[in-house]
Amino acid sequence: METASMNAIDLVSSVQIDALATPCLVLDEAKMTRNIARLQARLAGLGVPLRPHLKTSKSIDVARRVMPTAAGPITVSTLLEAEQFAECGVTDILYAVGIAPSKLQRAQNLRDRGVDLTVVVDGIDQAEAVAAFSRDRGVAMPVLIEIDCDGHRSGVRPESELLTQIALALGAGAELRGVFTHAGGSYDRPGPLAIVAAADQERDAVLLASERLRQAGFAAPIVGVGSTPTAHFCSSLSGVTEVRAGVFVFFDLVMAGLGVCTIDDIALSTLATVIGHQDERNWIITDAGWMAMSRDRGTARQSIDQGYGLVCDIAGRPYPDLILSEANQEHSIARLRPGANGRLPHLPVGTIVRILPNHACATAAQHSKYHVLGSDGTTIKAIWPRFAGW
Amino acid sequence: METASMNAIDLVSSVQIDALATPCLVLDEAKMTRNIARLQARLAGLGVPLRPHLKTSKSIDVARRVMPTAAGPITVSTLLEAEQFAECGVTDILYAVGIAPSKLQRAQNLRDRGVDLTVVVDGIDQAEAVAAFSRDRGVAMPVLIEIDCDGHRSGVRPESELLTQIALALGAGAELRGVFTHAGGSYDRPGPLAIVAAADQERDAVLLASERLRQAGFAAPIVGVGSTPTAHFCSSLSGVTEVRAGVFVFFDLVMAGLGVCTIDDIALSTLATVIGHQDERNWIITDAGWMAMSRDRGTARQSIDQGYGLVCDIAGRPYPDLILSEANQEHSIARLRPGANGRLPHLPVGTIVRILPNHACATAAQHSKYHVLGSDGTTIKAIWPRFAGW
Repeated sequence: METASMNAIDLVSSVQIDALATPCLVLDEAKMTRNIARLQARLAGLGVPLRPHLKTSKSIDVARRVMPTAAGPITVSTLLEAEQFAECGVTDILYAVGIAPSKLQRAQNLRDRGVDLTVVVDGIDQAEAVAAFSRDRGVAMPVLIEIDCDGHRSGVRPESELLTQIALALGAGAELRGVFTHAGGSYDRPGPLAIVAAADQERDAVLLASERLRQAGFAAPIVGVGSTPTAHFCSSLSGVTEVRAGVFVFFDLVMAGLGVCTIDDIALSTLATVIGHQDERNWIITDAGWMAMSRDRGTARQSIDQGYGLVCDIAGRPYPDLILSEANQEHSIARLRPGANGRLPHLPVGTIVRILPNHACATAAQHSKYHVLGSDGTTIKAIWPRFAGW
Repeated sequence: METASMNAIDLVSSVQIDALATPCLVLDEAKMTRNIARLQARLAGLGVPLRPHLKTSKSIDVARRVMPTAAGPITVSTLLEAEQFAECGVTDILYAVGIAPSKLQRAQNLRDRGVDLTVVVDGIDQAEAVAAFSRDRGVAMPVLIEIDCDGHRSGVRPESELLTQIALALGAGAELRGVFTHAGGSYDRPGPLAIVAAADQERDAVLLASERLRQAGFAAPIVGVGSTPTAHFCSSLSGVTEVRAGVFVFFDLVMAGLGVCTIDDIALSTLATVIGHQDERNWIITDAGWMAMSRDRGTARQSIDQGYGLVCDIAGRPYPDLILSEANQEHSIARLRPGANGRLPHLPVGTIVRILPNHACATAAQHSKYHVLGSDGTTIKAIWPRFAGW
């Protein structure tokens, strides 16, 4: 287990953004607050509670600003996340990645400490392993069955016979709590109409699955859906008991490309310094390579390819069409995107820029802390640590 | 500055590879030792010393096995790497990324502690900044001029007038030590003939640059080249004074695709567990997502696309044509590559696999430690920490 200090540092003496060593991660707190309020208001209108996914931030400071209560509920993608947030007092945790049998004891250790941790299965052998573990330990491990709503990854099809077979297998020791799904396919479908359709498909899949389980005699009180696109575009969540979403807190260029947010909503950026030029090729070299941006190229399949990120001035205003076209470990090449008819901005060596990420989860994972930008847009008011590992 | 404990843990009680929590990073020490010996023997034959690039490993334990002496010389890509290795006694360090003026004081701090740190420039304004800093501080910062041998990123063309202008600008305070280049373009040119040509081009570029500087009256004692492909395929290094290379220590699928190593030479892998199946689609789901593999897709442009990695059994033997075709944060989909005519292996939930990475630098960067595999292929004999950040 890897840990990091979970203590935020509130900066009493004023640190200006241009005094930070680059590359580093900057978080615009006002934008984050606005993004959180937007989804909270939307779900309040739909009458369904939020179980935020904290894999994006891996930060207790961000968690405290997005959780419904100090005890949760939350969603995590690793047992380390569960352990770290449990340390900070969170007691209602969904570990939303299919459980490996070898990880059951570590999950149970958290339950033994009073954390209501729920695990996930989508296969019979996995369900049998959880049931056998439960019997051996004299516990009843709570479980959700993962439903496949769009064929993008894991889960059981809601109409499959496998669904009730898994429920039966769990019944020999574990506690079936219900079903959940994730419309990962919604990331490939830009525009409101496509996302509304993905949201309907996501909801209908878990409603069908929970209905089939109830008809077969299984209680399935939890009916969960969730992805940032579908959470923002769903038309009705009738029958759904909770919504998960993660990247809505920060947003990113992939979400902007889908139409879920605007470029101006993106709260996370990598601060970088210009370290060179290739004048003949109209290239600007920065010190934000893939180590600082990640190798994520999520906008490559969208209508506007943002390369490894969209370059902004230090105030966060994008330079028109200036993107990172290539990234090496500690270098990137910024240039105008193909077809752009503007001029390359004059950015001498030493100029500080901010680069918006394709994928906030991936870019944040390259860093160990957030430099929290105050509402004046220039003062760093705090440093929030984030953890890494499994 | 971010630091990690630099203390390796030698495991006295026997830990077997199948007892490790997944995902995690496994390093086959015997393969690493063989890879290091191979390049050392090659360069010894060519009569040119190695200045290993430690950005790949970010580990003092790996460094000690590849450095010519405990004091270096080494190459680094960040000032944090320089600081971390200096802490461990390394005193001859090339910081091979163009220096930002704001980083000069931090570089000088290392020099003040007795570390012979050399910085890099490729522009006049940057050279003037280093010279001005040197004059202000009453020091003579040593500098290499970066030469562009193949148009792939940074550097001055060796025939450019800019070269002597930069040397002149440096003369006003800094110490010009010479030139270096990196044949990054060699990563795009598979096969021995293409790499030999890239190596010739790399060497000829720095020889021309150093000759032009000497004709203009500047001493340029250091003439450096380096990339893992060209270091393994160069035919002559006459006139070159040092060779840099990094990924040769571990190797990876990109290097195998170029023909620089075999699949069997790859010393680094991600240990993962099977956590599910989609039988209808012939998919195996593992717990090694992009968080454990990185988003690097370096083999996508090669003749054999390895997806996000090539799946092996726990002993490191590849399953024919089984690759990670998709990766999410903590999930990946393993399936047979398109066109493969074999059968999907039977890997039940809980099966432990090892996944070879596209790009060792990127995959290692997702982890905080190496689990060092002993020569029996099953015992983990030590844990070597690695650091992160800037």
